[in-house]
Formats: sequence, C-alpha cells, structure tokens
Amino acid sequence: MQLDTRFSFFAAAIVSLILLAAPTTSSAASEEKLVDMTFPFSEESIYWPTDKPFTPTVVFKGITDGGWWYASNQYAASEHGGTHVDAPIHFHEHGRTIGQVPLQEWIGPAVKIDVTGKSLANRDYQLSVEDLLAWEKKHGPIPQGAWVIMYSGIDDRFYPNRKEVLGTDKTGMDAVAELHFPGFSPEAVDFLLANRAITGIAVDTPSIDPGSSKDFKAHRALCKAQKLALENIANLDKIPESGAMLYVIPMFIQNGTGAPARVFAKLP
Amino acid sequence: MQLDTRFSFFAAAIVSLILLAAPTTSSAASEEKLVDMTFPFSEESIYWPTDKPFTPTVVFKGITDGGWWYASNQYAASEHGGTHVDAPIHFHEHGRTIGQVPLQEWIGPAVKIDVTGKSLANRDYQLSVEDLLAWEKKHGPIPQGAWVIMYSGIDDRFYPNRKEVLGTDKTGMDAVAELHFPGFSPEAVDFLLANRAITGIAVDTPSIDPGSSKDFKAHRALCKAQKLALENIANLDKIPESGAMLYVIPMFIQNGTGAPARVFAKLP
Ligand SMILES: [Zn+2]
Ligand SMILES: [Zn+2]
Repeated sequence: MQLDTRFSFFAAAIVSLILLAAPTTSSAASEEKLVDMTFPFSEESIYWPTDKPFTPTVVFKGITDGGWWYASNQYAASEHGGTHVDAPIHFHEHGRTIGQVPLQEWIGPAVKIDVTGKSLANRDYQLSVEDLLAWEKKHGPIPQGAWVIMYSGIDDRFYPNRKEVLGTDKTGMDAVAELHFPGFSPEAVDFLLANRAITGIAVDTPSIDPGSSKDFKAHRALCKAQKLALENIANLDKIPESGAMLYVIPMFIQNGTGAPARVFAKLP
Repeated sequence: MQLDTRFSFFAAAIVSLILLAAPTTSSAASEEKLVDMTFPFSEESIYWPTDKPFTPTVVFKGITDGGWWYASNQYAASEHGGTHVDAPIHFHEHGRTIGQVPLQEWIGPAVKIDVTGKSLANRDYQLSVEDLLAWEKKHGPIPQGAWVIMYSGIDDRFYPNRKEVLGTDKTGMDAVAELHFPGFSPEAVDFLLANRAITGIAVDTPSIDPGSSKDFKAHRALCKAQKLALENIANLDKIPESGAMLYVIPMFIQNGTGAPARVFAKLP
C-alpha cells in the first residue's frame, strides 16, 4: 500500500466517521429520514360498518371570561378503525392487551410485499405463501422481528373513500356481506407463524383477513400466537420493499383489544 | 505525525466506523435503549377535574356464534388528560391543530431540569429562569429543538393518586380552586421563547402552568409562539439530565387541540 493511497483512505474514513457520527448527536432526529404512515383521525376515518366511528365533540372554542382564547375537544370511537393495531386479546381469550405489550415489541424491520397489481385486478386477492417466497428470493430471508406488510395499493389510492376501500359505503350489519378488499391468506399467516420469527402482520386495507372472510382465520391464528396486527397503514408507496424500520406506536390503552396508532418508518 | 501514530489512529477510526455503523442495520431497534414514558389509559388516568375522563366501554367479550373468541371496546375522553400533548390551538386562536404539526417536529433532545427537592417541599413551586441557567451551567446550552422538561418527581411518585398529583381528589368546578402542583413560571417560558430555539416544554404534572394559576400564562405564551406542550410524562427518573432524545408521538387527531401521546426516550 502506497503512503498517499493510505492517506486518502484515511481521509475517507475520517469523512465517513463524521457522517456516521452525526445521527448520534442530540439534534439527531431532525436528520433522520422518517415517513409518517398514519391517516388522520376525523369523521371521515374508515371504521368497520358495525363499529362506532371516530366522533369528535367541541367542548369549548372561543374567548373565555378571562379574555383569552381556549379550545378543547372530546373524542369517542371503537378501538378498531383508522390506522390502528390489534392486540392478541382481540381474537384470543388468553391474548395480551395493548397494556401488556412492551413498547419495544412494536418496533421492527418493515418487509413490504408488493401485491398492488394482483390487488387492483382482484378486490378479493389473498396474499399467498408464493408472494412471501418471491420477496425472500429478491431480498433474502424475512428478518427476525419483522412486520410483514401487504401492500395492496388500496389505502394509498382511495382512503378515506369507503366504497373504494371497503367495497361498500353502507353501515350496519347489512353492509358486512358486501365487504370486499384483499388480505392475507390463512396459509400465508400459518407459514409465517410456523417458519419465521415475525413481530406481526400489517395491511393497507381495513383488516388483515380479506373483506370476504367469514371465519377470520388470519386474526385467530395471529392472536393465538400472541403476535400483533396493524391495519389501514398509509404511505406505503414511500418506503422501500426492504431495509426500513417500522415504528408502530399505539395509544397506551391498558385493557385495549386494539388502539389507534401513530405509525412511522425510518428509512435506511 | 509519525507513521505508526497515524496507523493506530487509522485503526481506531476503522473500529469506530464499525461500531457506529452497527445501529443502522435492520435489526437496530431491538438494540436501542428505549424508555417508555407513558402512563396507561384507564378509568384511573388523571384528567382535569372539569374534563371527561378516559371512559372505556366493552362492546363484546366472549365466544361468538362462530365458536371463536372475540373482544372489542370503545373509548371516550377529553383530549387533555393522562400522558398527552397540547397543540398550539389549545390557547391561541391561530394556533396549529394536532393534524397540522408534522411528526418530525414532535421529536427532540430531552433537557431534564431537576426541581424535585424544591417541588416536594413546595406544591406551588414555579420553575425559574435560574433553574434553566443552572442546567446550562452544568450541561452547556439548551440544544436546538429541545423539549425542556420540568422534573418535579410528583408523577413518578404518586400518579394516579389524584389527591397527591392534583392536590385534590374532587371533580367539577369546585375542585379547580383546590388545584396545587408545580409548573413553569411565566418568566421561564418567556425566557425560553425569546432566547432558545425549543420544540416545547414538558412536565410530570397535569399542566405546564402551576395548579394555582388563574391566567394560564405559560400555555398562552407557548401556544402563541406555535410551540408544543407535553403533560403527565412518566418515568423521568429513568432518563439522564442531558443526552436523551424524546419521541413524543401523539394520536393523529386531525382537528385536535391536544391528543393522548405515547412518549419514549432513546438513551444516549
Ligand atoms: Zn383491528
Ligand atoms: Zn393539555
């Protein structure tokens, strides 16, 4: 090795050191590349046709007797609507509540399975074991602790249009038979639970089971295994198929069977 | 510089490079040192005496006609209670809502001002400009984008005991005159807004204004400056006075004047 080669390598190492050290300083977060993957909660948020939608109430909005501005609201909703998570107790008697899942467990590598073509062609598409294996062929084994995400393209394109997202804009019991949107096949969920050490599964639709499901096999198997679910995730077009970290940060509802979540990705 | 000195420095740089590069791999999060700083939401969560408390309702819990377990709840509450944030519109007519504050803005360096001794001796203690300057003397200038946190020691010791945290366990209008807990002095807030580039201020009590405040000067000045507030933060004893990053992750309520938040610190 020549002295000047060594010097330029040395200089490059120093530059790299400075670049790599930057994100560990106290002003780090502003330099992290974060993508917010949450739909805002409002009267428009998409809920199951039989569930209580997000319902804000203005308590006060205006000038007080003291002469200053004051505004405050209340909110009410089902735990299951909008961008939200399911705790294992949602479909398993001995499953954990939201309060029993530690913060750290909600954070894991994002594995984005792109089935947009198949989903936009077929509203009842079910993500298959073959789709999982095709991802692994391209990107390597699904990493430990992964969030395995179905990217159907539906929420990005259509949320909060109920007709396009749910397959129906009706509410109440009669609407349930009209639900149509893609989800995980029972076989794909069973494959992941048996063969990969995942954190949970996520979808950019209202449910991890397809809309046409009558027996909720994806929910039942996942909850029985004490794993986590994430539904109605936004902005999946803005993260890569591999390499991002998913931060799924639920409201800390002690006895929650689910909870609204703020979801964001840290880009590689 | 001698050649071998240069070589050992070079070797050190390479080792540092490897160490610094490690946290950027995809299994990073499980190795991060995160502290959850959120109190769980339940009927016990502390709300302002005049506000609607967190109210969960069981919608279904048991075996369905299909033969499998199902559990689902609703929730209702004021935006302002438990571990939660205030958006600038809370006390300023032209302030931003929760939906208008980008995710990234909620993340910043944690500056923990320890006033536990003074606060436990005096329930009406007001954090002063001198307390801020004493922190800077020890740790250097308050970093850009900081969350400036009053550590009174009250929530860590007493939450959710209403009598110990609020100064009264009554509810309704009559209770307001009996509120006593420490907060930021108006002078300390004005000093920060005029002289330091902060993200917001945070407290381990129910309000950034002291409980005895009648004019809410801390809220009014902070909201007018479009800055953020965080109240009822937990586990402040588990983070250092300087060097942690605070992730304040609110439920994404579009028109929210505030929102429940999941708060965590990344340790240095
Ligand atoms: Zn759900
Ligand atoms: Zn508040």
